[in-house]
Amino acid sequence: MANDAWDDLLTHLRKLSDIGSAIALLSWDQSVMMPSKGADFRARSSATLQLMYHELLTSPEIGALLERLSDDSSLDQIQSASVRVLARDYNKATKVPADLVRELAELEGLAYAAWTEARPASDFSKLAPLLERMVKLKKRQADAVGWEGERYDALLDDFEPGLTAAEVEGIFKDLTMQLGPVAEKILQAADDVPEFTTKEYEPAKQQAFSEWLIQKLAFDLDGGRLDTSPHPFTMTVAPGDVRQTTRYLPNEVLGGIYATIHETGHALYEQGFPLEFADLPIGHVPSLGMHESQSRLWENQVGRSRAFTNAILLKLKEQFSTELGMLTPEEFYEGVNHPERTLIRVSADEVTYNLHVALRFELELALFRDELTVADLPDAWDAGMEKHLNLRPDSDANGVLQDMHWSLGFFGYFPTYTLGTLYAAAFFDKASADLGGLEEDLKNLDGSRLLGWLRENIHSQGYLYT
Amino acid sequence: MANDAWDDLLTHLRKLSDIGSAIALLSWDQSVMMPSKGADFRARSSATLQLMYHELLTSPEIGALLERLSDDSSLDQIQSASVRVLARDYNKATKVPADLVRELAELEGLAYAAWTEARPASDFSKLAPLLERMVKLKKRQADAVGWEGERYDALLDDFEPGLTAAEVEGIFKDLTMQLGPVAEKILQAADDVPEFTTKEYEPAKQQAFSEWLIQKLAFDLDGGRLDTSPHPFTMTVAPGDVRQTTRYLPNEVLGGIYATIHETGHALYEQGFPLEFADLPIGHVPSLGMHESQSRLWENQVGRSRAFTNAILLKLKEQFSTELGMLTPEEFYEGVNHPERTLIRVSADEVTYNLHVALRFELELALFRDELTVADLPDAWDAGMEKHLNLRPDSDANGVLQDMHWSLGFFGYFPTYTLGTLYAAAFFDKASADLGGLEEDLKNLDGSRLLGWLRENIHSQGYLYT
Repeated sequence: MANDAWDDLLTHLRKLSDIGSAIALLSWDQSVMMPSKGADFRARSSATLQLMYHELLTSPEIGALLERLSDDSSLDQIQSASVRVLARDYNKATKVPADLVRELAELEGLAYAAWTEARPASDFSKLAPLLERMVKLKKRQADAVGWEGERYDALLDDFEPGLTAAEVEGIFKDLTMQLGPVAEKILQAADDVPEFTTKEYEPAKQQAFSEWLIQKLAFDLDGGRLDTSPHPFTMTVAPGDVRQTTRYLPNEVLGGIYATIHETGHALYEQGFPLEFADLPIGHVPSLGMHESQSRLWENQVGRSRAFTNAILLKLKEQFSTELGMLTPEEFYEGVNHPERTLIRVSADEVTYNLHVALRFELELALFRDELTVADLPDAWDAGMEKHLNLRPDSDANGVLQDMHWSLGFFGYFPTYTLGTLYAAAFFDKASADLGGLEEDLKNLDGSRLLGWLRENIHSQGYLYT
Repeated sequence: MANDAWDDLLTHLRKLSDIGSAIALLSWDQSVMMPSKGADFRARSSATLQLMYHELLTSPEIGALLERLSDDSSLDQIQSASVRVLARDYNKATKVPADLVRELAELEGLAYAAWTEARPASDFSKLAPLLERMVKLKKRQADAVGWEGERYDALLDDFEPGLTAAEVEGIFKDLTMQLGPVAEKILQAADDVPEFTTKEYEPAKQQAFSEWLIQKLAFDLDGGRLDTSPHPFTMTVAPGDVRQTTRYLPNEVLGGIYATIHETGHALYEQGFPLEFADLPIGHVPSLGMHESQSRLWENQVGRSRAFTNAILLKLKEQFSTELGMLTPEEFYEGVNHPERTLIRVSADEVTYNLHVALRFELELALFRDELTVADLPDAWDAGMEKHLNLRPDSDANGVLQDMHWSLGFFGYFPTYTLGTLYAAAFFDKASADLGGLEEDLKNLDGSRLLGWLRENIHSQGYLYT
């Protein structure tokens, strides 16, 4: 049966998706390709497109169509889920004034550019004024959208719909109380850092290894790319165009490999959405925690397993025979899982990782509860690192400046890393039980049955369900 | 004195420039970075943005502002030139219906993608149906915009404003009549192809050389990039973001070097527009012939000179000591300027280059005079190559499929190559006379005085003058 309102909505959805695609490309390019002198105009161009997107999303036409379709019982499951998700986005977006959308979008570009300079210089003052404005604007945005419990809830809702600050606070209180002492014991009992992890590994060879690895993990290079950026990330430009990045630092070979596996987890999710969901609001992840569940699952449950580490060591030795020739599979496995007090979240082991996240969550919460100022952030960071990890940052570069998230206005994002870690464990347990013999697969670097399970049970569902 | 209408116009111009920037990036990325499965959605996304650009450019608001400003005597030279150029674009754009704009934009993406498959496969049938539709749509577009003499005039006007088919026909008749016999004599008297030009040169080393060379030529890498693509081109994403591409084929070392010099000429022009022209319609080239004058000047007058070839050979020998160790400067100079019957325009020497262009112009003109069909294009191409160069293409890949232009709808573009070649000779003569001692500069690979002259007399003028 023809449904004119749905067809009209589709026309708008396609246009939104086309503009969104351009916005994604502008953003990917900014981090991966853009020459430095392009930053100012890029910030403006991206802001203009985001504003156009916002104008279309909040247009009276879409509002009227949503009203007509919201209780249209002739819609199928895909259509009604799309209407539900779009209505949610529409309702949030209509509450944010256009000038705030533009200000935020422009500030993102500028603050991110400032962060890329501030971090290598270890100079927080380069970022501070922009970050202060960012916190102010995010508060205005949260208040415009509205919240029930507290302001931070509105920020969380952008990344993990429905989750509240109080819930996350409870999770982290519980987690740090139990994990803190355990982690401390493990760290004190840990051996020295394995020598092989601190050697120098030629970036070009690391790259060749990563390019081999993502193909083994079934990342489709005809429908995506692998590049490098200061902070690894995955971004979908369009269906058939999923881009991940990693980094190859000479003295952090494991960091590079596990960043690649992590991002491949994200990218496989993005490549797994059904093509029929393209342009639909359900052709996306339901939450960032869900997204992170896929990256963490491949990184930790798969990537740090004995079977998998043994298997990739063979290939890694081909690239680095001098550096790794004498290493035993067990030494490599232990190195990959070596618990260590590190200043850097993305280099952290599984034991300490969530303590890094807890620190960030506590600081964010304090910022948005007006209990902490941006000026006091570096000191609060250092104090928090001492509290959680008994470690004092040697510089802001290795402290408060290490992550790009806040410069992009991503407050409420960090907790999803821990949620994803928890989801990942549950998903992998279920997949293992359903499939049986997964370890044997991983010994042969064959992730196809596991990917098939994830595709069927998770990826193919998009945002059909809340 | 405040001028509200001008300020309002500026707001629109900035938005046009922001959308234009995204369109440019989508296009650059499509040729340089995009994975193949992204093609369909990219074509659509690019079309949507082009349509939005067209809608804004032809909006009643801009029309009304142009009317108010067109005889505003308080405007300064920059402002009134901007109004003149914008009014021209506005008047042309308002005549083209929005659905045709979208159809053309979508077809560009699809036909370009088809061309990238058709060329390596040497299979014209992969491109033919799309090219047929392209010619049909371009005819509709020309008729919508209108023309006085003949339809092809309207196409030319997009690239070389004001030029007519009759004028170009006269130029090429004159040129081929005089150049044809001279070229034939030179070709018959020419030595065999110098051995060094056909050796294999490792692409990675070619790349290192090109990266060194563009910096010597003062291309600003903080405000631009050099990448590779099947067909070299230069595209400005925004002020401070000028991107050129080249290509490194193992058996075409000179082709790669001179493509790089050629594109650097374009890119230096783009990097030379005053920042105060940013967002203004005069912050662009006045015509493609003018653009080509800069690329040809650096490629031919500078790049193929004895002084310059001698100077770069030293560096080239560092990269390729085995291949070039015994080569004398004079042999290299002769190799760079070796006249040769080639099937490929971009590999052609200065003597035969314009004959390649003449062929394309004749075919285009015949297509748009309805004297030739797309189906007959391959045969007509081969016949034309025999007529102009006594050479029969061995395949469509080396014949009618070699250039990307037609797949992108660029009809009326090729003649500007020859015009640019003529302008280049005149500009270089004048610069040499004004500056004196240019040869000495080039011996030292110092193009700074020449670039200064071009910046002052040409680049800094943008599109101030018709």
